[in-house]
Amino acid sequence: MAKPQKHLFICTQTRPPGHPRGSCGAKGSMAVHQEFMQQFEMRGLWGRFAITGSGCLGPCGNGPSVLVYPEGVMYGGVGKDDVVAIIEEHLLGDKPVERLKVPAEIWG
Amino acid sequence: MAKPQKHLFICTQTRPPGHPRGSCGAKGSMAVHQEFMQQFEMRGLWGRFAITGSGCLGPCGNGPSVLVYPEGVMYGGVGKDDVVAIIEEHLLGDKPVERLKVPAEIWG
Repeated sequence: MAKPQKHLFICTQTRPPGHPRGSCGAKGSMAVHQEFMQQFEMRGLWGRFAITGSGCLGPCGNGPSVLVYPEGVMYGGVGKDDVVAIIEEHLLGDKPVERLKVPAEIWG
Repeated sequence: MAKPQKHLFICTQTRPPGHPRGSCGAKGSMAVHQEFMQQFEMRGLWGRFAITGSGCLGPCGNGPSVLVYPEGVMYGGVGKDDVVAIIEEHLLGDKPVERLKVPAEIWG
């Protein structure tokens, strides 16, 4: 693929039920990944932007985590319903979605 | 973790032996991942830089692939022996390792 304008990394790390750190996988990140891929498909965004599933991105307690480069914006608690906002406001509109950012003391 | 100065994504995608696209996992990317982690440990680089294993980054034919953000530099054919060069020249010295970059027609 060509170098994308923006590259989304979606944590798909899974830990066993009851693990003290929890995991993005256990909090539904696979459904978020799937929704991003469906929206990319519907909107013809492949090539311009990229999506990659990833291992642990760090702030497990705030997952599901989605990290956008090159800006280095970390979103937390991302659900399926937040996918359209990230695509329309951040990827297409170039304005990060402030309400979904993890606190600056965690990623700042 | 805090937002890192540079963030390495190492493709750890695995496909079955004989798969036409091949995979970074089949070409030894787990050993590359391991070597990066050992070097980070020895040199005390955690916090300043981050390493995350990832799914497919695209240029499977040129794997093992290592992608560095925020620059968006894609390295291909990375072996264990290349890890120190990437750390010393790129992460610490801020000069990407030209000889390891994938061709611009693949990621440019």
